[in-house]
Amino acid sequence: MPEFTPLFMDQLHDLFRWRRDVRHFRRDPVPEPVLDELLRVACLAPSVGLSEPWRFVRVDDPRRRDAVRQDFTRCNADALSDRTGADALRYARLKLAGLDDAPHHIAVLSHPEPAQGRGLGRGTMPQTTTWSTVMAIHTFWLAATAVGVGVGWVSIIDPERVRAILDVDPTLELVAYLCVGYPAEVASTPELERRGWERRAPERREWIRR
Amino acid sequence: MPEFTPLFMDQLHDLFRWRRDVRHFRRDPVPEPVLDELLRVACLAPSVGLSEPWRFVRVDDPRRRDAVRQDFTRCNADALSDRTGADALRYARLKLAGLDDAPHHIAVLSHPEPAQGRGLGRGTMPQTTTWSTVMAIHTFWLAATAVGVGVGWVSIIDPERVRAILDVDPTLELVAYLCVGYPAEVASTPELERRGWERRAPERREWIRR
Repeated sequence: MPEFTPLFMDQLHDLFRWRRDVRHFRRDPVPEPVLDELLRVACLAPSVGLSEPWRFVRVDDPRRRDAVRQDFTRCNADALSDRTGADALRYARLKLAGLDDAPHHIAVLSHPEPAQGRGLGRGTMPQTTTWSTVMAIHTFWLAATAVGVGVGWVSIIDPERVRAILDVDPTLELVAYLCVGYPAEVASTPELERRGWERRAPERREWIRR
Repeated sequence: MPEFTPLFMDQLHDLFRWRRDVRHFRRDPVPEPVLDELLRVACLAPSVGLSEPWRFVRVDDPRRRDAVRQDFTRCNADALSDRTGADALRYARLKLAGLDDAPHHIAVLSHPEPAQGRGLGRGTMPQTTTWSTVMAIHTFWLAATAVGVGVGWVSIIDPERVRAILDVDPTLELVAYLCVGYPAEVASTPELERRGWERRAPERREWIRR
């Protein structure tokens, strides 16, 4: 096993600190070999039974992108209609979607009952399959941050509608729709915290004891 | 933003490669300050709306540990009874549980509807809350690997029964039961692959195009 130095540890913690949910992108594309390498690294993520249930989809077709953008707009309007006053304003100002600027759109889907892995470890907790895909997304996100590439996870969409827009195997489950590109601004503090939406809670950093 | 060097990138990829699901532990404990630091780092994980839904529970009570071990044994026996012949033998030999040797047991639970985050981003995809906790677990796992601490995720348990054993807020959802300690052996290849259970699929490392 490689020896990880204290310097590496510091840098790793920096990476966790600077891994932001990016909403503001430059429009210049990320070179294809860089994206290919990020996908290869993402596949090093853990998966239950070694099932690798993730499916990474590059969405390049402008009509599909436009349909996803429309779905986001509709879902975002619904979310806004539930809120009132200052909250709603703040919510609208968060400008949640980097959908318009990000040069790359990547949908990540998950096979709910993969043959690979032969069912190991998911009998009593079948959700561990989807969670494996979540960890692959997180791995992609961290590896991207390390090469200066930003990732924004759009969840204000209807997953079933977006899956239909992408015209992929209907048994696949949409887990994430990612905007990917070089960030137009960088920060170590979450945008939601900078904009006064929410703060981290110190009590999360304390153990519960049993 | 810190500059991440090519050397750091190589080490990061090494970290992803060597982050194993550990099943064989030494019995000596991990120093408390190390565990505390791992928890702090885990809380740098992304969370939808900055909701930080994760709750990390240290399970030290021998009676609770024993009850969890019994639950695992029962679920593992059920899983075995579903399989036949060579598969069943291989399955049994995988020795899935480090439960007996690992000095630390850490349960990770998730609040399904946290007030923190104020519902942002989870309207159409409420599962993103649980997925935030999954990313905190993955962050813990990576940070642990970097300091030579092994983590094994036990999913062959009944999550509702284990939650009851832990006697925590019944609204919390059990996501993972982790065995934590120094690994008795290290490898860059998944144990499931070394033992012939499953292999990684090269086609996962190719984009699907839309």
